[in-house]
Amino acid sequence: MRAHWSSVSSWNRDTIPGFQNPAGIFIRHALGETYGDEAHQNRLQLAADALNGTDVFDTNRARAAVDEAMADDSTAGGHGMSGMITDSSTLDRVFSPFEVALLDLQGKILGVPVSDLLGGRVRDRVDFSGYLFYKWAGHPGDPDDRWGEALDPAGIVRQAEKMIAEYGFTALKLKGGVFHPDEEAAAIEALAERFPDVPLRIDPNAAWTVETSLRIAERLDSTLEYLEDPTPGVEGMAEVRAKASMPLATNMCVVAFAQLPDAVAAGSIDVILSDHHFWGGLRRSTMLAGIAETFGMSLSMHSNSHLGISLAAMLHLAGATKNIDYACDTHWPWKNPEDDVIVGDPFSFVGGSVEVPTRPGLGVELDRDRLAQLHQRYLDCGIRNRDDTGYMQKFNPDYSAVAPRW
Amino acid sequence: MRAHWSSVSSWNRDTIPGFQNPAGIFIRHALGETYGDEAHQNRLQLAADALNGTDVFDTNRARAAVDEAMADDSTAGGHGMSGMITDSSTLDRVFSPFEVALLDLQGKILGVPVSDLLGGRVRDRVDFSGYLFYKWAGHPGDPDDRWGEALDPAGIVRQAEKMIAEYGFTALKLKGGVFHPDEEAAAIEALAERFPDVPLRIDPNAAWTVETSLRIAERLDSTLEYLEDPTPGVEGMAEVRAKASMPLATNMCVVAFAQLPDAVAAGSIDVILSDHHFWGGLRRSTMLAGIAETFGMSLSMHSNSHLGISLAAMLHLAGATKNIDYACDTHWPWKNPEDDVIVGDPFSFVGGSVEVPTRPGLGVELDRDRLAQLHQRYLDCGIRNRDDTGYMQKFNPDYSAVAPRW
Ligand SMILES: [Mg+2]
Ligand SMILES: [Mg+2]
Repeated sequence: MRAHWSSVSSWNRDTIPGFQNPAGIFIRHALGETYGDEAHQNRLQLAADALNGTDVFDTNRARAAVDEAMADDSTAGGHGMSGMITDSSTLDRVFSPFEVALLDLQGKILGVPVSDLLGGRVRDRVDFSGYLFYKWAGHPGDPDDRWGEALDPAGIVRQAEKMIAEYGFTALKLKGGVFHPDEEAAAIEALAERFPDVPLRIDPNAAWTVETSLRIAERLDSTLEYLEDPTPGVEGMAEVRAKASMPLATNMCVVAFAQLPDAVAAGSIDVILSDHHFWGGLRRSTMLAGIAETFGMSLSMHSNSHLGISLAAMLHLAGATKNIDYACDTHWPWKNPEDDVIVGDPFSFVGGSVEVPTRPGLGVELDRDRLAQLHQRYLDCGIRNRDDTGYMQKFNPDYSAVAPRW
Repeated sequence: MRAHWSSVSSWNRDTIPGFQNPAGIFIRHALGETYGDEAHQNRLQLAADALNGTDVFDTNRARAAVDEAMADDSTAGGHGMSGMITDSSTLDRVFSPFEVALLDLQGKILGVPVSDLLGGRVRDRVDFSGYLFYKWAGHPGDPDDRWGEALDPAGIVRQAEKMIAEYGFTALKLKGGVFHPDEEAAAIEALAERFPDVPLRIDPNAAWTVETSLRIAERLDSTLEYLEDPTPGVEGMAEVRAKASMPLATNMCVVAFAQLPDAVAAGSIDVILSDHHFWGGLRRSTMLAGIAETFGMSLSMHSNSHLGISLAAMLHLAGATKNIDYACDTHWPWKNPEDDVIVGDPFSFVGGSVEVPTRPGLGVELDRDRLAQLHQRYLDCGIRNRDDTGYMQKFNPDYSAVAPRW
């Protein structure tokens, strides 16, 4: 559930009539995509109000204006992620969709793709990984979805087969932390047997103790491309990293610039899963890439559910950032193709990769009818805050969010 | 002595005819400014050859092309700095003037100032510090210059008075490491007495031992805004920093991204003096600013002798970078106003600050007559490599470059 903003509705650049898109396109809107939690939306409104009148080329002052606007924010929560991640920067999270929109607008005005505003494409296509999930055949009460059940190694392998057949992914990631660690390790082993040449990752969302992490790391020694957030916190991660043979990745213990010094000092991380939605936008994400390069870390890319605006932004970022060179995560296959807010279906996955758009700006256009439909769905569903734990408890009243669980 | 390049002479962008500067200016050249050492010039030529055909919006691929070209480079030396600094990155140093030129060209094509390509101005004027030097009244054999002799505290105060009267600087830096540390401390004390409200810095270019550094730091306890490179190396700097009361700054022990992890781990530095000439250009310098912000360091700006192209680049960088907020160094007052290669005299110092250019690109134009004159001077002077030690030995045969000296 995301809010779609096209709210940078005016600017004060004196010379704006001089900025003609070479193709003569009148620029109707600029696009960014972000979380839909109520508290986040309140903050977005504060930010949008503060940005009216902002020079579209002045992302630095725009960020400062949003920073100032956040001083009036007394809301709690609304970080848009699952309950365990609370340390991302409010400013970076709130400013991100506006920064993306400003770059989209700059690109449209100047007639260049956003990737050019980030230093130019270093690759023409971006590789993604197939993102596998344990799941029932459908949401309780709803019809089965097209993916079917995956509750054991065989089910996960079936899901992977279908996903690779349709999208061609050459890397696979399993979202773990659902079943006992040994069952999930068995699923990875089954994937390795079925797809011996495909790099594999498992991400138990910090559900394991250091001891369990090390035991599973040893079991999957020759099998994993990287091990993602086996255990909570930079200290625990550092302990695992000191002994595990494979690289350790995170989108949990390091989700903000302020967390980097401690993680670097402790030696917690090999791979940061960047995500422009909480790292402050695309330029701040290239800065994260510079920090990673400087301090000897690698980069992959984290994904929440997202629509086409964010896929475009992810493509421009990864397309222009040399060291985002692990196949990036995406939830794209889990979205119904018709559920989007952009015009048409401009992205195609070939061999697991998607071409970086070369049209001006982000290279996608808003479809107001589709936006209206999805907005109606948002109004009808009644969900205003992400609450994974509450949802689980509807089906398993004994469920509680504990980490580590095993 | 610098080489001036306008050698990105072609590009392969299919749509280039569509990129019209809104003011209708035909773009004749793009400007960058760098060192003039012979080995450096050889590398620049390798780089220029490799860049022919480069897409002007693709600075990432341009950098990769220069990186590849440097594989054929077997030259030693040519780092353009004094003998003590050898650890700057060859790629960053060689690519820098081309990156500046590419941004100049992008800005001219798009009709926006370079500061907009760096995220937009966060300040309209950039503060500089008055850079004081011990000196004879003139070079031996040459007539006295307009600054007169400065060989003791009174001479330094006279120099500062003249410089503040002409440029309005509100911060002062003394280049030390010339006389006994106590004489130089006395000069700082004389400056503090004469200008009680002006922040003061001293930079002995690593001429002091840790012990001497700490003794002088204690003597100048309440007097210095920051202490710059008192002693060599990140270890020595960390020792001084642990006990000195004022911030420690450097443009010697950290001059490349590769040196940052050790300096951060050792806790050597409070203030990095950035310099786009060896930090890989303007975008890499904003990345350095992000690293400094993330790891709790501050930024000032280092200067070698420079002409108007580099002053423009420095203004765009500092104008668009929030945390370059110490007054920046500049050698500008030491240059004869007529010795430049740009058209006119577009910069004026008011209260020690200069306005960030708002014209497209860098906002300066090349004067080919002035370039020809300075090029003739370069041919006539016969100097092909910077050799501070050799120059000193012409007048003092016993001189040798030792650090620390005291
Ligand atoms: Mg994760
Ligand atoms: Mg210095």
